[in-house]
Amino acid sequence: MADKLTSKEENYSQWYNDLVIQADMAENSAVRGCMVIKPYGYTLWENMQAVLDKMFKQTGHVNAYFPLFIPKSFFSREASHVDGFAKECAIVTHYRLKNDPDGKGIVVDETAKLEEELIVRPTSETIIWNTYKNWIQSYRDLPILCNQWANVVRWEMRTRLFLRTAEFLWQEGHTAHATPEEALEETDKMINVYAEFAENYMALPVIKGRKSANERFAGALDTYCIEALMQDGKALQAGTSHFLGQNFAKAFDVKFLSKENKQEYVWATSWGVSTRLIGALIMAHSDNNGLVLPPKIAPMQVVIVPIYKDEETLNKISSVANKIKAELEAKNISVKYDDRDSQRSGWKFNEYELKGVPVRITIGPKDLENNQVELFRRDRLEKQQVKIENTVGLVEKLLEDIQQDMYNKALAFREENTRKADSWEEFMDILENKGGFVSAHWDGTTETEELIKEQSKATIRCIPFDNPQEAGKCILTGKPSKERVLFARAY
Amino acid sequence: MADKLTSKEENYSQWYNDLVIQADMAENSAVRGCMVIKPYGYTLWENMQAVLDKMFKQTGHVNAYFPLFIPKSFFSREASHVDGFAKECAIVTHYRLKNDPDGKGIVVDETAKLEEELIVRPTSETIIWNTYKNWIQSYRDLPILCNQWANVVRWEMRTRLFLRTAEFLWQEGHTAHATPEEALEETDKMINVYAEFAENYMALPVIKGRKSANERFAGALDTYCIEALMQDGKALQAGTSHFLGQNFAKAFDVKFLSKENKQEYVWATSWGVSTRLIGALIMAHSDNNGLVLPPKIAPMQVVIVPIYKDEETLNKISSVANKIKAELEAKNISVKYDDRDSQRSGWKFNEYELKGVPVRITIGPKDLENNQVELFRRDRLEKQQVKIENTVGLVEKLLEDIQQDMYNKALAFREENTRKADSWEEFMDILENKGGFVSAHWDGTTETEELIKEQSKATIRCIPFDNPQEAGKCILTGKPSKERVLFARAY
Repeated sequence: MADKLTSKEENYSQWYNDLVIQADMAENSAVRGCMVIKPYGYTLWENMQAVLDKMFKQTGHVNAYFPLFIPKSFFSREASHVDGFAKECAIVTHYRLKNDPDGKGIVVDETAKLEEELIVRPTSETIIWNTYKNWIQSYRDLPILCNQWANVVRWEMRTRLFLRTAEFLWQEGHTAHATPEEALEETDKMINVYAEFAENYMALPVIKGRKSANERFAGALDTYCIEALMQDGKALQAGTSHFLGQNFAKAFDVKFLSKENKQEYVWATSWGVSTRLIGALIMAHSDNNGLVLPPKIAPMQVVIVPIYKDEETLNKISSVANKIKAELEAKNISVKYDDRDSQRSGWKFNEYELKGVPVRITIGPKDLENNQVELFRRDRLEKQQVKIENTVGLVEKLLEDIQQDMYNKALAFREENTRKADSWEEFMDILENKGGFVSAHWDGTTETEELIKEQSKATIRCIPFDNPQEAGKCILTGKPSKERVLFARAY
Repeated sequence: MADKLTSKEENYSQWYNDLVIQADMAENSAVRGCMVIKPYGYTLWENMQAVLDKMFKQTGHVNAYFPLFIPKSFFSREASHVDGFAKECAIVTHYRLKNDPDGKGIVVDETAKLEEELIVRPTSETIIWNTYKNWIQSYRDLPILCNQWANVVRWEMRTRLFLRTAEFLWQEGHTAHATPEEALEETDKMINVYAEFAENYMALPVIKGRKSANERFAGALDTYCIEALMQDGKALQAGTSHFLGQNFAKAFDVKFLSKENKQEYVWATSWGVSTRLIGALIMAHSDNNGLVLPPKIAPMQVVIVPIYKDEETLNKISSVANKIKAELEAKNISVKYDDRDSQRSGWKFNEYELKGVPVRITIGPKDLENNQVELFRRDRLEKQQVKIENTVGLVEKLLEDIQQDMYNKALAFREENTRKADSWEEFMDILENKGGFVSAHWDGTTETEELIKEQSKATIRCIPFDNPQEAGKCILTGKPSKERVLFARAY
């Protein structure tokens, strides 16, 4: 813990950047826009991956791996996809370096120029559908339910650790189906998997809905999403699931012989979440003391800190601490016993608060005298003394409580910060002075959507699945609307 | 199962290629030299990753993630590294495409040229040591024990699925230490981890040793390796662990304040294994019927195939099959019950032999009458009838036996194919007519090593750790030698 954290209230954006760096989550690298994910941040990602991967497999998916590079021409095949993805990207043009003839390091060997440039994948629909062409002949080959864990690159001009980086890690599911109904069912299934993951593991309440036509994935007929609210009142898209119709099948000529013996184009979905979720997790829960992490995916769930002045006391404390540690570990709870003598206990308290370890157990000489330890819960910064023999059971309970309370707190915040606006003035007042989600009527046209965005910097985050049908008037044009949609300024 | 497999004896190389494709392990992609790892092959990789990752963590390592791209200039910093790695590689020169002014698809936007080209990582020592510079100030920050699971790219001209591809998946460990002793201990520890993995999980006996100076990793002071023997008598390097000395610390100016309060350069190791191991696994064990996979890492350990003519029989078989399946799964054994009616049982037998499923259980109406099932072990193609109530226990035992027998068989093969040569004629005779490892004296010079390679196509695979010291004469030059080294033609 080098410097003091900037407070959220002083500068939210700076608070976020400081926190990511100081809590050893990630840092900027020597390559513009590319981050280094440090071990503490990566362990969090591994924990998230493990849960998601299990959920994907339980819903019938398998993992596979497709090439990092995509031939440039592939992007031109699907008309709307090219505009969305093939512009700001990393382009490989050569395949050999040579020693500089002037003896100054190495230079590109101009004779080793690729006939066709290769694009570092920004997303893999094109290369995957080009592959699926050879995997699919008849309805018996369907469905194909593949997922890929991979790195992707989008050449972003303004980057922020986890939230927007040139290279990021993600998973991308790509499925192929015989009917549109089955593909739509898959699209829906996966947005629900994401929502369950966000709510039950990240303690992050999300709103499920569909994107407006303008905000759809490039190449999709429909995009479902989950939207979360950050503590500064801005929204963050936390996962998307796309119904791609037959667009990619047509672009890559992927047909199958149906049960009725007809050649038909295959129906597709794709869905993904990325390391951006780590940014969402940090921004949704953390405070001015550091990270607040949900126990279910925290890299370290419990830390034990001894307070002692001499070796003899430490030995007594250690025998209690190691017993508690072993018992907690037997319950699959991850525990670190930090008995380093190179750091003071005050330093350790700050460090583990900064790193968001959900529960701290402190044991000092007086505790031992009273047959007790001190439990500290990170989310509420609250302490309690408990009997040694009750510690394990109480810690277990406390981890569950923290998980649930974090969710409840985030949900209450979102509910307080979701407001209806029935006029442009009201709409702008909320956005400027309060933030959060604004539920408002819109006339349904892309023109109006873009005008609203231009004038308010707010976008339609989604049209919630459970949206009540309600007649009204567009807040900008006054034209008739049949339902409210959810606006917000967003990351 | 499309076509008949070419036999090993007819054409070993074609047999391997056919097998990889027909067993659904991997295939070539639209991008030259880049493979698609199909779900069956990827599941095998996931199983291998899971074991290795656990072994890395048990030996104190943590995972992290470093950028895909490396600035070109980084490669020039470590003199020997640049020659080894910065030549045949994928070079990113631009970051934007635009619509072709002539309306023909998309073209590279020449105005979006990078100031400094980026290399797609062929290995990450340079970018990682540039990062470690900021992580290390004092001896308290050491050791750093990071591993990364990642994709890397080396622009190979002649590629073969798994064995040599432009892009491949691997893990690379990069550790930083305060003393050379500690770094050497790490180098040694990790080659032992790899050997344990190869032998206990892949059933692949390996020889541990050090590389000759000429065969070392570019930038290493010492390279330890494990070498395995394939069924065609060629060797395959299955993993390496490098003692990098202070080379990268000096190249990237990474110093630490020692306990004695002196500024010193940090000591380094790196170590890695890749998807190449899958190629080794296939070539070491498989036969003319298809893959033979070791039970501990097989994607599917047991398959149950019912033989039936009518629905009623199938129902009776299914009730037995599902009970066995549930009991095996309760013991963490992966089981597929293939009751599809779209394929004949004969087709299924061939398919699961091709895919190397270690144990097949067949259940037909006569088996039920006799209260028995048929167990088939893939490695030996042997059948036995067993009582239904004994099935689960026997399958469990059989999986262990297959694992051990596969190892024993491969070990016996290697022992039969490791020979001493004491003259050039003997050396060439073995290489030309028998293959395998040849243990021979060599005068210890790089010149002779290269001459031998030129004239015999054999390389020094390693100088085994347990090599007896034995005076002799170099097979090529007749000059004195103090120990034999292990030669072979290799992949």
